[in-house]
Amino acid sequence: MTLDDIKEEIQKANKIVILTHESPDGDAIGSSLAMYNSLKQMNKEVDVIIPEYPETFNFLKNADKIKKETDVVQYDLAIALDAADIKRLNGFSKYFEDAKVTINIDHHGSNKMFADYNFVNPDAPACCQILILVLEFLEVSIDKEIGTCLLTGIITDTGGFKYSGTSKETFEFTSWLLSIGVNVSEVYRKVLEIRTKGNFALTKIAINRLELLEDGKIAFTYITKEDEEKVGAKNGDHDGLVDIGRTIEGVEVSILLREADGFFKGSLRSNEYVNVSDVCMMFGGGGHIRAARMFYSLAT
Amino acid sequence: MTLDDIKEEIQKANKIVILTHESPDGDAIGSSLAMYNSLKQMNKEVDVIIPEYPETFNFLKNADKIKKETDVVQYDLAIALDAADIKRLNGFSKYFEDAKVTINIDHHGSNKMFADYNFVNPDAPACCQILILVLEFLEVSIDKEIGTCLLTGIITDTGGFKYSGTSKETFEFTSWLLSIGVNVSEVYRKVLEIRTKGNFALTKIAINRLELLEDGKIAFTYITKEDEEKVGAKNGDHDGLVDIGRTIEGVEVSILLREADGFFKGSLRSNEYVNVSDVCMMFGGGGHIRAARMFYSLAT
Repeated sequence: MTLDDIKEEIQKANKIVILTHESPDGDAIGSSLAMYNSLKQMNKEVDVIIPEYPETFNFLKNADKIKKETDVVQYDLAIALDAADIKRLNGFSKYFEDAKVTINIDHHGSNKMFADYNFVNPDAPACCQILILVLEFLEVSIDKEIGTCLLTGIITDTGGFKYSGTSKETFEFTSWLLSIGVNVSEVYRKVLEIRTKGNFALTKIAINRLELLEDGKIAFTYITKEDEEKVGAKNGDHDGLVDIGRTIEGVEVSILLREADGFFKGSLRSNEYVNVSDVCMMFGGGGHIRAARMFYSLAT
Repeated sequence: MTLDDIKEEIQKANKIVILTHESPDGDAIGSSLAMYNSLKQMNKEVDVIIPEYPETFNFLKNADKIKKETDVVQYDLAIALDAADIKRLNGFSKYFEDAKVTINIDHHGSNKMFADYNFVNPDAPACCQILILVLEFLEVSIDKEIGTCLLTGIITDTGGFKYSGTSKETFEFTSWLLSIGVNVSEVYRKVLEIRTKGNFALTKIAINRLELLEDGKIAFTYITKEDEEKVGAKNGDHDGLVDIGRTIEGVEVSILLREADGFFKGSLRSNEYVNVSDVCMMFGGGGHIRAARMFYSLAT
């Protein structure tokens, strides 16, 4: 069983590195720190390498131990978390490629199975939900701090228990987390509710420009580079803007165009029946049925 | 035990009326219809009287059976749900006062214990969560439809599992609902996510007027009667506007003033440390520590 191999490799290894995908979100950071704290509990030498991540997650235990890089030439073991492809490992795939043994734990259906041991479950709504099982198998004692890391990933990737992938196990585990003292509502607030001033300023712009098209079935809005510069927007400040239109009654598809260098990045969301992945594919993009992306060139 | 008495009275009664508070929300309507569907399962003659409620909840089983009034002179039994005070029974308190026996099931700490049998638990985050216990005691088989009604109340009153009152039992029960086929994410979307065009128009106005005061710790905005008339706002369209400011980073208190006849209704929300109930009390209002209301007269 893969889990037996993973357990054995972790037990054998001393110097371990944890890596995750670029533009890391709550599931990437939550699973990395849950694994870091668990391996520390097992008295391992561990590094988590994430070059850049939103400050939002600094409340997680040992977030201050996250490194931008290390000078270790070869780790005994590299663990990739929440990463579908080795190319998405933050441009730090060298640590992974140079490691003696590699493990890949993920929940993306598109996972490339790029490691020596791959433990991938596309049915799990978050990588953190897979980690529950892995950590239990490793006999880690999931305490309040590790639980908070895991919950951060779960809340991020289920949109606060609302996406359809949210499972029976998600709710069961969260119930158990409450019983060990994890402050679910505080984590929810920190991870999902608080928005930056930059995000608020962009929301205001996007909401004022929003148009309802095709008899109210399509909501459309956009953000230019000038807007982002004017409000001093930081990385991630445009997150969630595409959802403004999606939540209006009668809207099936919400479209956000965001200006980049010489082209627009398009984000599409649908509610019930439109396959936005198909739409984006026509413009050279793709994604999921209800959430997809595309690129729209300004040059003709 | 009160539950024994409640069970006995329900078993004895034939003509039963269910009542809930005015301006009914998802917990009021969800608990009323959960009780209605349960009593129908027990072969009772039942009326649910709710003069006006948002269309949002028409997807619940037997929502079309809700009556505005009836000509029944005396019910054997009246059950008030999610109502802290007999005065809040929709101006339909006569059905309650004239009934032979009365039951009051609620979760408000301020409940006036106005019935013959009062089953009140202020620790429950929703009246619907108390109903789980009551229905199990009544040996009702909680099916997908009744479960959907109960979940509607839970999702409404926990803000989608995010308020601090959300308990271990809330998550456990939701996990169980998934196992009997309740579509949690669909209910979430219908109950919490979809906003009316009127709400969207008011959101746009409120967001454009929003000011950050006191070094960004207070967010303030307002809505006039003229605004509501201009956008054709319906009952409930102002719901959630006070939360716009609350979610901006650094904000502790969010204030929304909404014009009524000759005065402003103030809604206050706080995040971590300000007791807004105390603030509202100074203006003759009140509420909870993190959510309170007050009235601010225009005449001086």
